[in-house]
Parts: sequence; C-alpha cells; structure tokens
Amino acid sequence: VKVEVAAEKAKWLVEPGCVIIGTTGVYEKANAMTFSWQTPITSGIPCKILLVIHPDRYSYELLKRNGEIALNIPGERLVREVHLFGSVSGRERDKIAESGLLLERAKTISPPLMADCPANLECRLGEVIPAGQHDLLILEVVRALVETDVFDGSSIIPERFKTLHYLGGRKYGVLERSLAAL
Amino acid sequence: VKVEVAAEKAKWLVEPGCVIIGTTGVYEKANAMTFSWQTPITSGIPCKILLVIHPDRYSYELLKRNGEIALNIPGERLVREVHLFGSVSGRERDKIAESGLLLERAKTISPPLMADCPANLECRLGEVIPAGQHDLLILEVVRALVETDVFDGSSIIPERFKTLHYLGGRKYGVLERSLAAL
Repeated sequence: VKVEVAAEKAKWLVEPGCVIIGTTGVYEKANAMTFSWQTPITSGIPCKILLVIHPDRYSYELLKRNGEIALNIPGERLVREVHLFGSVSGRERDKIAESGLLLERAKTISPPLMADCPANLECRLGEVIPAGQHDLLILEVVRALVETDVFDGSSIIPERFKTLHYLGGRKYGVLERSLAAL
Repeated sequence: VKVEVAAEKAKWLVEPGCVIIGTTGVYEKANAMTFSWQTPITSGIPCKILLVIHPDRYSYELLKRNGEIALNIPGERLVREVHLFGSVSGRERDKIAESGLLLERAKTISPPLMADCPANLECRLGEVIPAGQHDLLILEVVRALVETDVFDGSSIIPERFKTLHYLGGRKYGVLERSLAAL
C-alpha cells in the first residue's frame, strides 16, 4: 500500500543517492530512462530535485513537450529493468513494453508512475541550466508516494527498500543496512 | 596504500551517491564539512562534480578564499565523524581537532586530505550557480586517489569500501553489497 509523503519530506526518498527511473511522455505512450546523477537541492518546501541529463536523450525530448516527469525509485528486484532503461534508447525500442512492468496513472502529471517501484515522485520541470556536456534540470516535486513498509515517516528503511546505487558497467550496489551515528 | 585514479575514472568514486567530507582552508587551518548533496555532471575528461551548499556555511567562506576543496570519501568506520562534520559549524569548533582524524598534504591544492578516508579528490572551484535556497558549485577534479583494495580499477568495491548514504537525522545507510545486472 502506498501513501502520500508530505512535500517537505519528499527529498528523503532520493537523498541516499540511489538510481531513479524517470518516466516521461503520456500514460498511453511513455518512455523510461534510468538516472544515476541526481540530488536534492532544497530543504523544506518546495522540494526541488536536480537531475543531470545529456541533451541527446529521447526522454529529454519528451520532457520538453509537457514539462513533466515522474521519478520512480526502484528496489533491488528491478536491477535488470534499471539496466535496460539506462542502456537502451526509447527511440529504438519500447523499453517499458519489453520490461513488462506495470504503469499506473499519476494524479497531477501526464507521465505514468511505475507501480513496481516502492516510491514515486510526480514532478514539473523548472529551470534548465546548460552545464557543458550535460544539462541540469531543476524539478519541483508536486506529489510523492511511498509504500508504507519501506518508509518510517522520515527516512527510507534500507533493510526493506534495498535501493540501487550505480557502480559502473553492469554493476550496482545495494543499500540494505542502516546505522545511527552516536 | 593509495594510488592515483585516472581523471576519466574519478567520477566512479562519488557516483554511488555516498556522503563526502569536504575539506577547505589550508593544511595548517582547515575545516571539514559533510555533504550529502552531490553528483557527477560529466563523463570523460575533465571530471566535474556538482556540490550543493548553503550560502551561510563556513566551508563556503573558506572555499571562496582559495577556490580549492578536497573531497574525501569515508567508509562506515567514520560515521561518527561524518555526523559531527555535518551537524556542527567550523565557526564554533575545531571539528578536525576534535575528531582526531589525520590530515595529509594534497599535491595540487592547499586544503588537506583526510588520510582515514579510502578515497580523496583534489578539486578546483569552477562555475557557481545560485539556485534559490542553495548554490550549485561546479568542481573540477585535478587529482584523485584511492586505496587499492577498495577499487577494482573501474568501480568501488562496496563489500570493502562500505560507503555511507544519508537517510536523515542521525541515520546512515551502508553500501556493502553489489550485484551485476544480467
């Protein structure tokens, strides 16, 4: 079961530095792309997340059409799909159909959410900052959802969420243990 | 034993989204601050890393003086120090002295490296982009070092490095397992 996360807490869903599946386009014709380069850039409200993207990406083309993107946070079980979405272009193949993953409608934006991801953030594109090789996209989170059993109300629970962290090539790290600083 | 990492591979030291201890100032009078908001923004050369910082931070004041910062990547053993460096200002306390951590001289910049961190990146400050609440700092990596037993030549080895990933409050996730996408 997923519940809404308050805007001021949405950043904790991406703060660990995990990979994100960005879904763009519309529910009927969507694309998915994996991002490893992301970071929150605000505390409090509004929640803003920075995403780094290469200007040539098909997802960028779709994002510019409606200014909307959903960020879907996968757990370890989706590592195969994460790698597919990060290494093949949606211009050539319908990656979502290939993956067999289930989409569901977002509430505030046109791109769909990935039902199999424990957390989803509905975002609108704000400022775009060219930074040489890549562009920096400032996203504003308008709605965030998380499965109740992987979020304690303030932080993700890595033991249950098992977020993926890109290491290079086909390798991913799995975050599955937490500790408290004394 | 630490070895130099080629510039085009330096990004793999921060790519997993781990927390970073930034050291600023000079060897004789340095400050340390923990950053969770970071991401690479380039592939290849030069290696550029984006760091998000609040304008009021003491580390920012020091960084502006000489335009240099070292990024030190801690492993799990330093969780107590990571939390100290992230929750107390260097204006009030000499955090490095309190921590007892050992500094060593960098080769290309004035701020020191943290000897106890398995990886270190010597960086120069490039463009600064105001982004509302926080500023975006574009850093160029001029020299990178890593302990030979935690890096396989292309990626970090989480089983040995055990990078820390911020979860909120006093909580950190530990990255200590990897898997390959099939």
